[in-house]
Amino acid sequence: MQQRSEETRARILDAAVKRFANAGYDAASVGDICAEAGVSKGAFYHHFPSKQAIFLALLEGWLKVIDTGMDQLRQDTVPDTIIRMTEMIPAIIATAEDRLPMFLEFWLQASRDETVWQATISPYRHYQDHFARLVMDGIAEGSLKEMDPQVAARVIVSLAVGLFLQGVIDPHGADWQEVARASMEILMKGLAK
Amino acid sequence: MQQRSEETRARILDAAVKRFANAGYDAASVGDICAEAGVSKGAFYHHFPSKQAIFLALLEGWLKVIDTGMDQLRQDTVPDTIIRMTEMIPAIIATAEDRLPMFLEFWLQASRDETVWQATISPYRHYQDHFARLVMDGIAEGSLKEMDPQVAARVIVSLAVGLFLQGVIDPHGADWQEVARASMEILMKGLAK
Repeated sequence: MQQRSEETRARILDAAVKRFANAGYDAASVGDICAEAGVSKGAFYHHFPSKQAIFLALLEGWLKVIDTGMDQLRQDTVPDTIIRMTEMIPAIIATAEDRLPMFLEFWLQASRDETVWQATISPYRHYQDHFARLVMDGIAEGSLKEMDPQVAARVIVSLAVGLFLQGVIDPHGADWQEVARASMEILMKGLAK
Repeated sequence: MQQRSEETRARILDAAVKRFANAGYDAASVGDICAEAGVSKGAFYHHFPSKQAIFLALLEGWLKVIDTGMDQLRQDTVPDTIIRMTEMIPAIIATAEDRLPMFLEFWLQASRDETVWQATISPYRHYQDHFARLVMDGIAEGSLKEMDPQVAARVIVSLAVGLFLQGVIDPHGADWQEVARASMEILMKGLAK
């Protein structure tokens, strides 16, 4: 039973991705998603309370892929690890670019609902914590200066968010991987011991 | 005549700001804007070819305010100038925050039309050039290391964009002016001679 339930959940998520991409987030109804997935509305609402919940689940799944990628890039020192992470930028930009209209539609809806908005912005807070821990590791290993890890993490996250956003809105405006690597190298010079 | 024409244009822009803020960008029609401004559709189309053109004119006017602010913050050295600019962040975030749903609606439309999209993203390219010139000044005055000014400008703009975006989506998540100042100081350490 457990396995079948997981399969149904995955099928609903796949169907939602297709419908959101083809029809847009607003225009795709729960009924459309159910039809695409071949499940009843009852089954849908058993897994997800709303269309918004699906979107947040998709966002979470996508961020898990990024997390796994980041974990695999651990190098000998923290500055090297952070510089190495910029190699993920092109793939992240490409994925987000395809989904930009869908994201904008969702954010527009989310901006009108405080609870959904908080859920939508929680990922970047997660990255803030992730990088704060990494900075603490760097201070402990002696590769980074003594500093407030929260402040250093905010600088790193801000730079990453800015690179990501520019890459999405202007994908051909620069070689974003090169820009990201050069940017992080400069930043690391400011943070290194 | 010239003066009256300028007044009409300004009245249309003021009316558009009101209607976009109250009804949203999509829902506000050219007819609504004309009614609010007390002008004929003929007068409207004499000044603006479309509702999109109004939005782009508003965006441009807003960016001119930022440009003027930046010009007034010139300090003795380029690094000091750039750090000083972070004082503008709270005002920029506050203005953008009020207009976030309007921006999202506009960007969503713009993302479906390549020409409008290019016009929408041109401002950040303008900042790229602005900071590249500033970096060249810094290299010339000896406060910044020899480096590719375009690369350095991209780092600065990326960081600023990331700080701005986080401030807009999570205004109470941090003291963004403090974060911006600390961030730029760290970055300037990486760029200073």
